[in-house]
Order: sequence, then C-alpha cells, then structure tokens
Amino acid sequence: MYELTINLQPGTKVPLYEQIYNYIKQDIQAGRMKSGERLPSTRALCRHLEVSRSTVELAYEQLLSEGYVEAEPCRGYFVAQIEGLYQFDRKENCRKPENVRREKKYRYDFSPFGVDLKSFPYNAWRRLSRECLTDDRTELFRLGDPQGEYGLRSAICSYLHQARGVNCRPDQVIVGAGSDYLRMLLIMIIGNHHRVALENPTYRQAYLMFENLECEVCTVDMDSRGMSVEKLRESRSDIAFVMPSHQYPLGIVMPIRRRMELLKWADEAPGRYIIEDDYDSEFRYKGKPIPALQGYDTHGKVIYMGTFSKSIAPAIRMSYMVLPDSVLEKYRERCGFISSTVSRVDQLILQKFIEEGYYERHLNKTRALYKSRHDTLLGCLKEIRGDFEISGENAGVHLLLRFYGGYSEEELIRRAAGKDVKVYGLSGYYVGEQKMPEKDGAVILLGYANMSEDRIREAAALLEEAWRNK
Amino acid sequence: MYELTINLQPGTKVPLYEQIYNYIKQDIQAGRMKSGERLPSTRALCRHLEVSRSTVELAYEQLLSEGYVEAEPCRGYFVAQIEGLYQFDRKENCRKPENVRREKKYRYDFSPFGVDLKSFPYNAWRRLSRECLTDDRTELFRLGDPQGEYGLRSAICSYLHQARGVNCRPDQVIVGAGSDYLRMLLIMIIGNHHRVALENPTYRQAYLMFENLECEVCTVDMDSRGMSVEKLRESRSDIAFVMPSHQYPLGIVMPIRRRMELLKWADEAPGRYIIEDDYDSEFRYKGKPIPALQGYDTHGKVIYMGTFSKSIAPAIRMSYMVLPDSVLEKYRERCGFISSTVSRVDQLILQKFIEEGYYERHLNKTRALYKSRHDTLLGCLKEIRGDFEISGENAGVHLLLRFYGGYSEEELIRRAAGKDVKVYGLSGYYVGEQKMPEKDGAVILLGYANMSEDRIREAAALLEEAWRNK
Repeated sequence: MYELTINLQPGTKVPLYEQIYNYIKQDIQAGRMKSGERLPSTRALCRHLEVSRSTVELAYEQLLSEGYVEAEPCRGYFVAQIEGLYQFDRKENCRKPENVRREKKYRYDFSPFGVDLKSFPYNAWRRLSRECLTDDRTELFRLGDPQGEYGLRSAICSYLHQARGVNCRPDQVIVGAGSDYLRMLLIMIIGNHHRVALENPTYRQAYLMFENLECEVCTVDMDSRGMSVEKLRESRSDIAFVMPSHQYPLGIVMPIRRRMELLKWADEAPGRYIIEDDYDSEFRYKGKPIPALQGYDTHGKVIYMGTFSKSIAPAIRMSYMVLPDSVLEKYRERCGFISSTVSRVDQLILQKFIEEGYYERHLNKTRALYKSRHDTLLGCLKEIRGDFEISGENAGVHLLLRFYGGYSEEELIRRAAGKDVKVYGLSGYYVGEQKMPEKDGAVILLGYANMSEDRIREAAALLEEAWRNK
Repeated sequence: MYELTINLQPGTKVPLYEQIYNYIKQDIQAGRMKSGERLPSTRALCRHLEVSRSTVELAYEQLLSEGYVEAEPCRGYFVAQIEGLYQFDRKENCRKPENVRREKKYRYDFSPFGVDLKSFPYNAWRRLSRECLTDDRTELFRLGDPQGEYGLRSAICSYLHQARGVNCRPDQVIVGAGSDYLRMLLIMIIGNHHRVALENPTYRQAYLMFENLECEVCTVDMDSRGMSVEKLRESRSDIAFVMPSHQYPLGIVMPIRRRMELLKWADEAPGRYIIEDDYDSEFRYKGKPIPALQGYDTHGKVIYMGTFSKSIAPAIRMSYMVLPDSVLEKYRERCGFISSTVSRVDQLILQKFIEEGYYERHLNKTRALYKSRHDTLLGCLKEIRGDFEISGENAGVHLLLRFYGGYSEEELIRRAAGKDVKVYGLSGYYVGEQKMPEKDGAVILLGYANMSEDRIREAAALLEEAWRNK
C-alpha cells in the first residue's frame, strides 16, 4: 500500500482537498505511483491525515475526473495509464517579447486616433460582466447567431434610430469584430467585382482593405462639401465609400444637399451602393445634428457602418453594419454560414451597457469632456499668431490647421518634434496615384481626445514657439 | 429659485446621490428646468433635503460631467443647453425576435458539433475575468497587437509545442475570432489565385469559404489513410486543406507515412502549401499521440490552424494559426494593418486560463468525460445486431456506422427520427461535382460529446429498435 505522508497546510489559500489532489497528481506524474497501483481508501486516508472524509473524496473525485485514477466498484481507486494525459510544463513558457519596433515617445501627442479611456466606466462594465457570467449561463457558451445576438442588434437599432436617424430592423444588423472585419465580410457578400470610389484624402485602412480584397479602387476629389458627385460619376465607380458625419481626415460635415446628390447618383443605376462609415458621429459640437445619410435613403442604397471603438474603447472589438434588403438577401445566400466573430458574453455585456443607460451616460460624459478639450484647443490656437486657418472643427476629435506659406509640412512636424510635441501631417492620407495638391500648402492634424486641458495649453504654447515665423 | 422637493428613498438599491441626479436630470429633460436656470447651491440643497453635502456634490458632479448643467465660478450651477444631448427612450427597444426558423427538437441528438458545456469551469473563468477587469487596466482597452497579445501567443506556442509537437515562435502565431475568420484572413494574405484541394467528404464550412473567396476549389478522393497524394498531384492544386488528426467527417487519423508523402508533395514545387486544420486534436482515445504534420515540416510548407471552440467553448470565438516564415512575411506586407478581431480582455482571460493550469485540467477532464461516453457508445453499438461497421472511433467526438445493405441513409435517419433520435447522414458532407459513391452504402454519423452515458444507452436501444432488419 502506498504511503501518503502529505504535509498539509491548513489556513492557506489552497483548499485542503486541492493540496491532497496536487500531491497525488505530482506523484503519479513523476512515476512515484505506478499505473495499476492502488490508492488508500478514502476512509483510511482521512483518518491518516486527520481531515474529513469528504475532503479526501473531493480530491479523489478531481483525480478521477481528470483521468489520473480509475475507480473499480467494490475494489477502490487505482492509478490510471497516464501516457496520453496532458501535463504542461509551465516554465517553458518564456515570455520574452520579440524585437518590437520601438516608436519614439513624445511628451505631448496630438494623435487623431486617441480615445480618452480614463472616463471609461470600469465599475459598470465589471459589474455587467460579472452578471453575465453567473451560473446557468451554459447557453452563452454555445455558438450564437451568425449576425450577432438578437438582443444586442435590437439595442443597436434602437440607438441608431434615436441618435442617428437610421431606419432599420434588427435583422438588417450584422455585428462583427471591428470595422476591418466588416469591410472584409461586406466584400465577400457583394463580391469584389466592383469599382470602389473613396474620397481623397481618406481613411487609409479602408482603402488598403478594398485594394487587398482585389476590388478596383479609385479616389475622387472633394470640395468643401465632401466628395464631388460630378467627379464620382466620371470615375465610373459603382460603390462610393464616404464619411458624411465627419470626413476622415478633413473633418468636413457633408451638408444635406450633397447627401441628396449622392443618393441620386446611387439611384441612377441598379447595383450602385453608398457605404456610409459613421465612425465618430457621436461627437458633434456645433450646429443641429444631421441624421445619417442612411436615414434619407428610400431605395435601399446605403450600407451603414458604425463602431463602438471610438465611443467606448478600441479594444472591445465590436462594430456593426446595417444592410439594405437587397444586400441582406445576398448575405443570407452567400455568407449566412459564417460564424459570428464576437463572443456572446461580450455581446451580452454591451447589450446591458446600452439597455441599462450606461451608454447614454457615457456618451454625454465623453462628449462634454471632448467638447471642453476642443474649446480649449481652439482658444489656444486662436491666440497663436501665424498664417493658418482652422478647419474640420465642428465634429469628431481632431481638427486641421492649414498654413499659407511659411514652413512645409515636414518642417512643421520636425520643429514640433523638437519641442517634444507630436503632430500629424495631412499628406500621408492621400492615396493612389494622386498626391496632395501643391497649392494646398502644409496641413497639420491635431487630435485632442486623449489630452487634458492643461496639457493642451502647454503643448499649444510649445507649438507657438516651434512654429514662429521664419 | 427652483424648488427641489425630492422624495428621497433611503435604504433602497439606488444611492441617494443618484436619486438626486435622476430627479434633476428628468426635470431638465422634460423642460421643467429651463436652460440658464440656476440650481440651488449645494449648501442650500443639502440642508433642504437633510443629506450630507458630499451627496449633493456627487449628484451635481454627475450632472456636470454629462453636460446637463454648467458651473460658473463664484456664481453656481446653471442648466445647460441640452439640445444635442443623448436621451434614449429605452421603451422603444422592442425585443420581439424576427421569425426564426424553428428546427424540430429531438429527445436525443447525436450532433457531431456537440460540446459538453456542463464541465466548463465557470468559476475559474469568472474569477479570471474579474481579475482582468480590475482597476488600472486602461491599457487593456487600447487597441492591441494586430496578431494578438504576445502573452497569449506565447502561451499558445508553449501548449502547441508540448501537446502537439508543433514547432513555432510566438511571432508566427495569429489569434483571430474563429476559424472562419482566419481562413478569410489567410486567403487575403496569400491571395485567391490558388487551386485549393479539399478531401471529399470534407468540412463544408471550409469548402464554402474558399469558394466564396473565389479561390479555385476542387476535391480529392481519400483512401483509408486520408487524402490520396497521387490524386492530389493529378488535381494540379497548389494548396491542400487536410485534417490529419481526425478527418472531418470520416474520422480517419492520417498515418505518419501519408503525412510524409504529403510534405514531399508540398516540397516539390515552390508556392505549394498544406493547411493543417487540427480542429479537435485534443481528443484521442487509442494509440500513441501522433504529432501534428507541422512538427515534421522542415521547409515551411504547413500553415497550422487550431481553435478553442471544441476544447473550451464555441462561443468564446478564439482560434489561431501558425504561419511559416514565407507566409508570415506576406502577412506583414499585405495584412499587418488589419486590427485584431479578439478583445484584449478576452485574450488576457484565456492566457491566464492556460498559464494557471486550468486549460490542462479542463482538457484532461473533458477527455476523460468524452472517453467514457465514447466507450459507452461503442459498447452499446457492439451489442446491436445489424450489418454495419464502426469507423473513425479512435479520436474526436463522433464516430461513423457504415451499413452494408438494408436501409438507405435517408431511411435510417427517418426511422431514427421516428423514435425521437436525431442522427446525421454522411452524404451531406460530399461537395462539388462529386456525389457520395453508391458503393459506399449508407453511412451515419453519431456525435457523443453532449450526451450523458445514460442517455447514450437509452438512445442506442431506440436506434436498435428503429433499425431492426428489414
């Protein structure tokens, strides 16, 4: 009979049954107990170790369930064949990261991709997450609806209707793991035999995605109201990708008249669609809210896309698109089999976050926060002497400075960097054959979402020094 | 001065400050308090309501942060312009689901897609999830590494090395939201100008995906060892999609010699690749473990794919692929800009789940569970009189019954359904031009992962009755 002299440590974090389980498991793994060997009876062991019988039973139960021992009726417990059992050596897991490209850290960074995460309601999110993971939730771990859970789609619909004037039913909504993924899925739905027109400059990520999916991609010039519909017509595209609420990077809010012209273009031929990317529509500071383009669409021509990356947090990886019926039909036919890319637990957390009013509060809070940062930055910029014009400042979380004469874009960025301030040039956003027009001069983007008002003031003072007239 | 007569309810779930906040917010929303109107001072209100001053201050703070009121230094709090504020009517959120296609529910269902979720370690998962969401985790909500977090990739590598004999570095691993997504991404990386050969019968989901991505897709016949390499050569494909650990649906475990032949085929020409889908390699009941094909690959020809859908839960949406260096290079060039599709919180939970030993325990537990179900089912089937042969039973969570003569596949399914038992036919897994060969007769799939031993016994008895000889 195998002698078990386990040095039990009562009162530690590890329960007694687990100490017994660990001891025996290690003995089996190390070959100190051989296959076929008999374990002491639970009665004998509990007396020997002076613990309750149920403690020993729990330990044996655990060993049994993991395949380390086998039970034979009326004979007792025996060490099993453990040849095929998983025994991972955790030390092997070396955690030395690969050589990462380290980017210079700036003291002040006007990144247009910033999101303020300090105001994220961690407590609410944590509580909802705990609630979602209570017992009796096995259903939540089964494969869910490919389009996303109905409850979440319904909450998104209701939000879109009230906040953005989008007309949709939950069955038109597809939830996906980020906008990149949704663009991939969309091209799988409608196929890549399309000519897609993007504004120039535009959101590079979208341009690259359409290009990689082997669509024909072209760019169309903009005027002060957004994409030129005349030029769009000339481009002979059948899909127009636009950001009417706040064009990225120029920050243009497309007026209603231009929206109507765009819809008219789409109506002129079957198979034409507008992809409306409403990526940061939540933040608008001036003028009446303009409903989404989708809200004016009566012929099913607009594919609407939105995301929670900007309004909640980039890493939660939840975006959505609203398909018009003709595209929805194709989705069901061609892509209905593709499993959802978002975990059901996460979907339920987000659904509760919206339904219980946290999203509304969070939006109002971050908008107030961004507005005061926006106002501070505008105030500081107006005091800087210099021959530049501010634009794109009515919405979103970044604005632009257009310089007339003076330093080049490169010089402006370099001189700011000299003061430890990172700013961004517009020229990088021009894609395709067309470069940024010379006459446009130097344009700088300043994002303010992730900078406190004090830091904005400090950075603006440094920029003034950096950009003092030649 | 506005009179605040709030009927406070102490001792309820809603804190006092929130009751005050709600009351004032509703008054502002309803227009009972107008823009520009002054709120009582915090000192006056706390005296009036007989609460502490900090309670009132908290309520005002909340209203301020959400933009309902504005503070003017030395003058007090005033109702703000709330025209643009979000106020969602939650009642509008009608939750009536669309017409869902209701599938008949069977008393016993031998689904080959089943996963036992009762053994899922909810407590551990919940605890890890709580740990991951503690304060000071703002970093977790920023956009992470496009390939997946390094820590998780490192844990996966270590697991794959020890459990599957896969040779890889963390920087070769890409984590994604499910295997469907990873197949889409893979085709974006290597382009769709390929001829992809799949086994026949095969996993339809993969076939459809390659077809939809507009790859050339063809099927290659199998013999008892798996995909015929001779026929693969004849097919003039450059990519072979195989499941050597447990072919789906036939359950064949590819012997080492065939694996070597496959690798030789891939080595014969540049640009040839093998996609190894190791979807349920965790469950193997007989014979020595055979390392993954990837482990024998010395020329960077194998793209290895795995998932946690089968081994943890389908709805967590986490899969991974290991790219050989040549493909990794293309990934960085063409697709490095695509954001990760898995939330960072979820990645961290899974990383801890693996690192803290829960995954090892869970795998051993479910394997023991599935093995006893497997043994029970085999035992029952051996007692059924009938002219059939069992195959594919050495691994995975389903097996096959091949009938010689007697009922057709359709009749077998119908007769089982008559006893309220759902079984699955093989013919549906044949794709493309080729139908299931007549000579193969009727083949039935029985999945047992989600059926207790008692229920397996009951269902097997019913099947015997249903399939009694003609």
